[in-house]
Order: sequence, then C-alpha cells, then structure tokens
Amino acid sequence: MKTKGYAAFEAGGLLKEFEYDLGPLGDLQVDVKVETCGICYSDISMIDNHWGMTTYPFVPGHEIIGTIEAVGSHVKHLQIGQRVGVGWESGSCGTCESCMTGHHNLCASSIPTVLGPYGGFSERVRANAGFAIPIPANLDAAAAGPLLCGGITVFSPMLENNVKPVHRVGVIGIGGLGHMALKFLRAWGCEVTAFSHSPGKETEAKEFGAHHFVSTSDPTELMNYANSFDYIISTINKLEDLTPYLVTLRPKGKLVLVGVVVEPLQFGMFPMLLGEKIITAGAIGSPASIATMLDFAARHNILPLTETFKFSQVNEAIKKLREGKIRYRAVLTH
Amino acid sequence: MKTKGYAAFEAGGLLKEFEYDLGPLGDLQVDVKVETCGICYSDISMIDNHWGMTTYPFVPGHEIIGTIEAVGSHVKHLQIGQRVGVGWESGSCGTCESCMTGHHNLCASSIPTVLGPYGGFSERVRANAGFAIPIPANLDAAAAGPLLCGGITVFSPMLENNVKPVHRVGVIGIGGLGHMALKFLRAWGCEVTAFSHSPGKETEAKEFGAHHFVSTSDPTELMNYANSFDYIISTINKLEDLTPYLVTLRPKGKLVLVGVVVEPLQFGMFPMLLGEKIITAGAIGSPASIATMLDFAARHNILPLTETFKFSQVNEAIKKLREGKIRYRAVLTH
Repeated sequence: MKTKGYAAFEAGGLLKEFEYDLGPLGDLQVDVKVETCGICYSDISMIDNHWGMTTYPFVPGHEIIGTIEAVGSHVKHLQIGQRVGVGWESGSCGTCESCMTGHHNLCASSIPTVLGPYGGFSERVRANAGFAIPIPANLDAAAAGPLLCGGITVFSPMLENNVKPVHRVGVIGIGGLGHMALKFLRAWGCEVTAFSHSPGKETEAKEFGAHHFVSTSDPTELMNYANSFDYIISTINKLEDLTPYLVTLRPKGKLVLVGVVVEPLQFGMFPMLLGEKIITAGAIGSPASIATMLDFAARHNILPLTETFKFSQVNEAIKKLREGKIRYRAVLTH
Repeated sequence: MKTKGYAAFEAGGLLKEFEYDLGPLGDLQVDVKVETCGICYSDISMIDNHWGMTTYPFVPGHEIIGTIEAVGSHVKHLQIGQRVGVGWESGSCGTCESCMTGHHNLCASSIPTVLGPYGGFSERVRANAGFAIPIPANLDAAAAGPLLCGGITVFSPMLENNVKPVHRVGVIGIGGLGHMALKFLRAWGCEVTAFSHSPGKETEAKEFGAHHFVSTSDPTELMNYANSFDYIISTINKLEDLTPYLVTLRPKGKLVLVGVVVEPLQFGMFPMLLGEKIITAGAIGSPASIATMLDFAARHNILPLTETFKFSQVNEAIKKLREGKIRYRAVLTH
C-alpha cells in the first residue's frame, strides 16, 4: 500500500514529505487511515535520536486516531470504517511471558509504531489487529489521540500500582502528560497535588483537577510536604536527585517515573529505608489497559486540552513543542 | 533497676564496662534479663556514629534473647521467666497510622533498643511489652538472637513484597544477613541464587540453600543473568550503581535494599522503564512479622550459623566482625 508521510532524514532534521510502500498486509494486521495524530515529546526524542534507536527516514507519530481501512484475513473483530486508536506500540511477539500475562507493553520484542516501519504523521499506519483499539462512540475522537500514548502513560501506573480513591497523589510536571494525569486522578477520587516549576500554571492545574499546587521553582518548598503522598507520578524528563520526592512520600509510598530521563538518577537510601518507600517506572500500558482507559475517559468525559495543527504545519508544531509553548498537547489533523 | 553493660564512650571507641540505672518500670514495659545477644553490623555503624545519631555512652546490642524479669502493672500476656527476644526496636508511639496499621517498624517515633536508652550488651534491657516477642519452645534459643534483627531484616521483605514459592530470588552478599536470607528463601520454596564477591563462599552458600552461585568479583558476570530474577535482596552496605542488578531483574521484578548504604545510590532509567522494575528498601520488620518469622524458623529449623563469644570478649568479637571474618554471625553470651 503506497503511503505518504512526513519524515526526518537525519537526527534533529526538519520533517519533509516522504513516500513509501507498506507492503503486503499480514493475516493479523490492519491498515488504519489516519485522521489525527498527537505529537508526543518522545517523537522529538526519536527525531533527535536522543535514545540512540532511531532509523532514518523516520516518520514520527504514535497518538493516532483513524479508521480501519483494510483488515488481514484472520481479523474478525474489526470492521472497515471502524474508528480505532494506535499508540506507542503497533505490535508485540504475542507469545512471551509478558504478552501471555497481558503485559504486551513489556514484551522485549514489542514493535514501536514509529519504527514498525513508519508512524502516524502520515496517511495510514499498519498495526497488529490487537493494537488498534476501538474508540468508544461517546468519546470525542478529534481530541482523543493524545490519550493513546500520553494518556495511557499516566493512567496505566494507576492500574498497575493499585492507586485507590483514598490516596493522595502528586503529579510532577504539568504538561502534555501531567495535565491528563490531573484529570484522571481527580476523576479517580484521589486528593491531587500538582508540582510545577511554572507558578503561572496554578490556575489551569486546578481547573484540570488538582486540589493543591506546589511550585518547585523554590527548591526548599518541597520540605514542607514531608510524608504527604501515597504516590507521585513524575512526567518530566529532567530530574537528577529523587531524594526530595522520596521525603515527600508517606510510608510505603511510591514514586512512579513516566517521563524518560536519560541521565543517571540518584537518591539517598535513608529517606527510602525509613518508610520502605518505592521507586519504579511506567512504560506506556498494555492494549487492554488502553481499552480500559478509553472507557473510563468516555464515562468521565476526560480529554486532553489540545492545540490543532494541519499536517502540513508539522514543523511549526514541533518547534512550538520544543519551546515548551504547547498548551497542552499538539494534535495534527488532515 | 541497676544494670551493667559494655559501652562505647566515643565514636569508634573500644567498649568498656558501664553501670547505669534503668529507672522506674512503666505500666506497659518489661525488663528482660539478657542471655545472649548477637552482634549486627549496625552496632558497629552506631559505635562509629556512621549514621550521625549515636549518643554516648552507647551500649550496643539489639539481637537479644533473654527471660522476662519484671513486668509493668498493665502487662498481662508475659510471665516472669518466659523467654523472649528483643530486636532493633524496643518500642514505638503505638498511635500513629504506621503503628495502627501494624507497621510499627515504620513509626517515626520508634525507639531503637540501643538508644532507649541502652542495648543488649548488658545484663538487662527494658522494652515495651509488645516488642518482647515470645520465643517458640522448639527453637534453639542459644542461636536464635540474630533472627531478631538480621533475620527479620531479610524475612520481612518476603512478607511485605509478596514473595511466592514460584519466584526466582537473588541475594547479594553472603554474610550475617545474606546467609539467613538463603535459608529462609529455600524453605519458602523459591529458586535461590547467591551473589557474592567471595568465590570461596560458594560451597557454604549452597549448603545454606542457594541453588546457584554468581561471583560478582568479575563485574561482567552479571550480564549473563539479564531478565532472570523476580526479586533481589541486597544485604551489602557498599553499592553505588544499581543498574546492573536492575538488568538482571525480570519484568516487574523488585530490588529490595536492606543493607544500609550511606553514600548516594544511582541507576539508569531505561533498564527500570523497559520492565517496569522496582527499587525499594526494607526496614527491619514489625513485631507481628517477627513472631511470624520465629514460628516459620521453628517449623523449618532455620537458625543462623553463629560464632559464640563471652560478653567479656566483646571487643575481640567486634574486631573480628570489622575484619569481615565472622562466619556468619557473632553471638555474645553470659
């Protein structure tokens, strides 16, 4: 299937039009005609080869909403024209222990949509049928794209780490991921605190669902929150010393890193030890968790706050995201 | 109550005889006449004021086996002459959320036996009644002392982190704590691997219960164990980069630090993220967990391998422990 997309041809390069062929459709694959695609900061990390795994030409885009355009011969549960979403993963091995226990997101052979072979800044993407998740009819599809990666990245830790409505949860970084985290946690029934180094975001953070706002532009401010949080979800990609956040956790509290930090992280053992506190990370979420999230988002009317760009404005949108000026998630549309 | 013990009078000092008075017995306190007391590496850390919290004169000792000598007026469940153990904690506030949910070991006002006011290198210690744990009749009391701190420190993480008999568990450091961890984990039904930088400990590690032995004297050796362990319990106090151990964990695997590392710890996020792996710490264990452990130890005949010294030989025993020559736990006896 001939397709056109926008590709980077070198690390950090501007995106340019690029034509390619997706080849024959596999028995358990589908083609999704792209309607909209969110822009995630990880698209920029990949364009820049910041994680050392990019191949060029590189077509970004993994927050895809579209319609089923073709189904493989063994695909019975999806119909042509049905609206689906595709996120960071477009497939996995399907047979390893992680896949067989429902944790396809932890499959060592999982296929990133943007590398398998080309992402959603394009006319169409190909995915394994299980990774094209039906979009509930009562969810606004035009804005739902960012749920597929940013949304599930903050929602899956709530499922996986057993967050309950009685918990006090902090969110570090009120951007694309963080603002969705505030919405989900508020709907979940938690007491929600936003941490941001931008004091100007307080009003919006509270509109998104935060009960409290803590400015981290003054580093001593965190010391007022010792033993306060059952969970903290960190969505930022610059974070060196985890110790102050360990201090703010309650006994048995958990710090979940979902923003990808490339540099080594460090912490002091005593704040961890004295409360048996926990550091872990969240890696997107499984297809089943994405379906659960979409159902929850539809029921609670949770959508990201988006800025919409035409696909032809993709470089402009990326530039604005690089500058930290998107409020709060960019979405490309045909 | 007049008492004699062995105290350090300055950081790093030799222990000398010291007389003191324990004062009036509280309603819910007991006095325990010391029979034996294990020597834990944390006694040395405290003698040296390595953790910055020691007060002098300092009487170490928190792996105490003894008999009830006096009970406060409200103590109904312990009888004079009954054999009990006292570990790192001799009391806690009893009213905070940690205490009220059974996690007395996480109470911010918990009383370390060695600071409350004097430890078990002495004739007697005073403890809150709930922290003097009855010793099962069928457990060899002469060797049981080290269970009260070293033992519970490796056993409690098995309870708290839901270790199951199907799990593959590694133990880093085969010393006082590590050798007890091997015994507990083998009795628990797990597949057990010992990590040690002393290749000469392989035979004994396997006698203690390890199925496998990994020498860490060759740092590249760990790379052969990627994605191998559900849990790793680290008992060592020198550990800088956790990344190689994160790599050896399976998806969702957990690294539990119980050896106290004073210097900052670091790790790389990718090995954690790709398997949603977990770092946490274990802080001794609650009195209820100690009772559970003693019952399990008695049923499975689990005891530390000890070297016995007279209390008058305390400085000699400490010297041997400082030199890393104790196999595997020193116990002082009257």
